[in-house]
Amino acid sequence: MSELRRDPIGGRWVIVDTDHPSKPEEYEYEPNSFRGGVCPFCYGNESLTPPEIEAIRDPNTAPNTSGWQVRVVANKFPALGIEGDLERRGLGMYDMSNGVGAHEVLIETPYHEKDIPDLLNSEIENFLSMYCRRALDLIKDRRFKYIMIFKNYGAAAGASLEHPHTQMVALPMVPKNVMEEIRGAHNYFEYRERCIFCDIIRQETQKKERLILENKHFLSFCPFVSRFPFEIWIIPKKHNGLFYHMPQEEIPDLASILKDTIAKLKKIFPNVSYNFIVHSSPVNGDGGIEGYHWHIEFMPKLTRVAGFEWGTGFYLVATPPELAAEYLRSK
Amino acid sequence: MSELRRDPIGGRWVIVDTDHPSKPEEYEYEPNSFRGGVCPFCYGNESLTPPEIEAIRDPNTAPNTSGWQVRVVANKFPALGIEGDLERRGLGMYDMSNGVGAHEVLIETPYHEKDIPDLLNSEIENFLSMYCRRALDLIKDRRFKYIMIFKNYGAAAGASLEHPHTQMVALPMVPKNVMEEIRGAHNYFEYRERCIFCDIIRQETQKKERLILENKHFLSFCPFVSRFPFEIWIIPKKHNGLFYHMPQEEIPDLASILKDTIAKLKKIFPNVSYNFIVHSSPVNGDGGIEGYHWHIEFMPKLTRVAGFEWGTGFYLVATPPELAAEYLRSK
Repeated sequence: MSELRRDPIGGRWVIVDTDHPSKPEEYEYEPNSFRGGVCPFCYGNESLTPPEIEAIRDPNTAPNTSGWQVRVVANKFPALGIEGDLERRGLGMYDMSNGVGAHEVLIETPYHEKDIPDLLNSEIENFLSMYCRRALDLIKDRRFKYIMIFKNYGAAAGASLEHPHTQMVALPMVPKNVMEEIRGAHNYFEYRERCIFCDIIRQETQKKERLILENKHFLSFCPFVSRFPFEIWIIPKKHNGLFYHMPQEEIPDLASILKDTIAKLKKIFPNVSYNFIVHSSPVNGDGGIEGYHWHIEFMPKLTRVAGFEWGTGFYLVATPPELAAEYLRSK
Repeated sequence: MSELRRDPIGGRWVIVDTDHPSKPEEYEYEPNSFRGGVCPFCYGNESLTPPEIEAIRDPNTAPNTSGWQVRVVANKFPALGIEGDLERRGLGMYDMSNGVGAHEVLIETPYHEKDIPDLLNSEIENFLSMYCRRALDLIKDRRFKYIMIFKNYGAAAGASLEHPHTQMVALPMVPKNVMEEIRGAHNYFEYRERCIFCDIIRQETQKKERLILENKHFLSFCPFVSRFPFEIWIIPKKHNGLFYHMPQEEIPDLASILKDTIAKLKKIFPNVSYNFIVHSSPVNGDGGIEGYHWHIEFMPKLTRVAGFEWGTGFYLVATPPELAAEYLRSK
């Protein structure tokens, strides 16, 4: 018998196969492999990217040369352009607007083939600090209402470049998926006067069945309503709506839990591709952040989304998150 | 400059690259290939599936033997089980329920390697009629609130079996994605006293820039707010909320437009994998269908959904639907 579970935040249902759960070896995923070729994100190829916006680099080196540890450039093929205003207009019965926004690429490391678990903790801390610095800079532009930070790792996860990088998109409106999550959290807050994410943290740290790792400031766990097998959330224990308001002293703990959690996952699924997304409150707006709590949603690419998921918005999960967490804890 | 377009039904935004649109040859999709092996959906292997629920077969043949043209069986690994009631219960702060529903597989043809464009029109009409017959049978069970009919073709589209088949899932609740679409259509109807889909049909048949094919009862077109490159909708011209209420005389036109539209697509993208989903009104409920209009949403698998789409619910479309329709019309 399968189990239907309801996401207490967004109201989405997932179908969890608790009767015949899939074991890790049953997933036929496409392993990430490096095809080579000229990489615009490697040392010596700095001229192949748009000019550097910001970097952490050796003080003796000039911008757009080698010697950097983390490097941020504009996306060469931006989803949205920085110029102009958000002019909404009709087109017959349809609505449209200019594609105003910013689209930056943060190159996490000079090492082409190093994934997060292969980096030193200090190197991870560097690129996480840069996430915050870039977000704080982007929100100075009052046209932007949301900063989306996400990473596609491996071709199966939609990455067009192999070299480890994170993308940051500044959007002129709060996206629908984010708005739904914020509304759900807000409704819970109105009703209970408590943050739903703080309640989730409390339940997960007490029950421990879905917990993977915990340190002073963070925990990683497989969410009760995982949409994907081995989905993982990483969340700060202390209530905080905005990612880029993360206290400096929490960054080492985030770096270490991110590294160790991905390392465990890759022991089960070598060379797995993945996406992760930083979920944070909107910016430059009128509130809506009460009861929201930033976190990272991490999704290994073990399956493909098919017609049922597209049509319904229901997700079928073949490995219950309790079992996934058990596999991950044991590594 | 890219263009932001707003879905007038669900309120979703898509980002369309109108400045540097991708040409068909720029999509690196995974072509569908047949790996062989024993197929439970081929002639002679009828005993490898659960027993036949219904079939169109030679009158001289017995159920669960060869001699069928269309065959419907229970899914061997159902997402939901038919037994029991939908008992909702809490689990700490979470909600859950039994996975009650039905999950059937409709084998469209005995020919393992024939896709829809390779079938005779009469063969396509047969399986489309069977969609309706099975839906009419499933809705007799008053526990079911929605019948989801969808097809995954090719591994890249999430098909676990190669042999052409369609899945039908009867659900005990109206899924979130469907509900959003229905609410959007209903709001439009309340405001304008017109069906939004009928208005879309009017605009698309007048402007013709996104039109692919048209016959007496149906049209196929690339929607203004395509979420995927070369996304296609097939819609009946006459207002009708429920797929399985389709008049018998419309079935030949649906078969022919489905076949010809997919044939055009496959001339551009040989062996492409795809999903299609029948969008129809809920069943056994209290209304909500005013202003809804059934249609098929067809999505070729040319790209992979990455972090940005997961996080935002925004879709990035590299080929504007106007251009996609032009490519399709020319084939």
